[in-house]
Amino acid sequence: MTASNVQTAAGAVPGQEFLAELDQYSARYWHDHPFHARLHAGRLSREQLQAWVANRFYYQKCIPLKDAAIIANCLEVEVRRRWTPRLSAQDGVRSGGGEIEEWRHLALAVGLTAADLDSDALVIPGVRFAADAYVSFARSRSWLEGVAASLSQGYAASLLAVRSDAFERHYPWVDKAAVSHFNERRDRLARESNDARTILAEYCVTRGQQERAHAALAFKSEVLRAMLDALHQAHPASE
Amino acid sequence: MTASNVQTAAGAVPGQEFLAELDQYSARYWHDHPFHARLHAGRLSREQLQAWVANRFYYQKCIPLKDAAIIANCLEVEVRRRWTPRLSAQDGVRSGGGEIEEWRHLALAVGLTAADLDSDALVIPGVRFAADAYVSFARSRSWLEGVAASLSQGYAASLLAVRSDAFERHYPWVDKAAVSHFNERRDRLARESNDARTILAEYCVTRGQQERAHAALAFKSEVLRAMLDALHQAHPASE
Repeated sequence: MTASNVQTAAGAVPGQEFLAELDQYSARYWHDHPFHARLHAGRLSREQLQAWVANRFYYQKCIPLKDAAIIANCLEVEVRRRWTPRLSAQDGVRSGGGEIEEWRHLALAVGLTAADLDSDALVIPGVRFAADAYVSFARSRSWLEGVAASLSQGYAASLLAVRSDAFERHYPWVDKAAVSHFNERRDRLARESNDARTILAEYCVTRGQQERAHAALAFKSEVLRAMLDALHQAHPASE
Repeated sequence: MTASNVQTAAGAVPGQEFLAELDQYSARYWHDHPFHARLHAGRLSREQLQAWVANRFYYQKCIPLKDAAIIANCLEVEVRRRWTPRLSAQDGVRSGGGEIEEWRHLALAVGLTAADLDSDALVIPGVRFAADAYVSFARSRSWLEGVAASLSQGYAASLLAVRSDAFERHYPWVDKAAVSHFNERRDRLARESNDARTILAEYCVTRGQQERAHAALAFKSEVLRAMLDALHQAHPASE
């Protein structure tokens, strides 16, 4: 029996309504977090911009671990097959490829060193704990919850153009080539997000599963907000 | 610092010697298990051959879960990148592809039904527990131990020709096309096994890591033997 045979089980709402419920979390999202506002308005110092990239790099290094954990917990071949390309997108298929490397280029372009990145020396404990919590969540919860938590990336797609503009306007000392991946990522983020939504609509067939998907996305929003809170506190706005 | 910088640390033996130590586990391997001997000598009844395939299919379904768990536990991008193609080899890159589907073809060719496979109804508890233990091992231990446990597949490569011959000679009622994947697998098994050996020689840089790799491979041998023991007991030789 495939999941689609039991779509009306146990008080579940129809797929489109369920997805609309999930979209409400985009409003709780971190777009308007004060640290993001400072980043996008060009009000970060060079050191603060470096801190943002270094901490974001740590989060980025965690992403393939959580995606592999989702696959490791998933008994549905079809879902695993659709999720596996995310690992290659992050890690690349050959040395020097993949999104982690693109973040490394950006990090070097803002003046960080390879040693800064490899040592995680600039990573704030609050950021580390939040990112690690995301990996632990994917390892210990159901794959459906892991997939639901990933949905925030769809809401982030719209942020990438804002970010790209902000770099061009406010941080012109950063090599444009190192920033270009923000725009290139946009299509992939949107595609992956649509794929995750399709999977959730198909496999969250009970109200309990739908509610756990809500909770997973709320949790993920907390992870992202906690990271920004920690950055904002460690690197406050100058008077 | 990469692992190769510290190859002589803490009493570790050189890489080639370490690999030779691991190869000693091939002797403990299950080649000559009585159930394998019966399979290869054509002494399994049709029902017993079905039981072997159905139980082996369950094990096969577990393999991408354990490979994803290895990736999820591994902080080395380079290793993750080399391990990810195993997921696609098992699950395929499109519907109907991948090694699990090849085992499904074999299962149908020996007379099992899709329902037999999806329900796991023919899976013996001892087989299930052993296969599940392998997945749990990969989830809970270090990725190096997961990689070491995988090495048995290299020792299995030589078995594939024997198995292919046995089907042709003793079980001619099984469609040859469904058996051909045993031979096609051989190159991939050898390639993957060599890759795993290279990784182990590079990253097992302390004697403690090398000894945990030994223990992991011994554990894996026990998993495979336990599966065959359970099959042999549930489906004994006729008088």
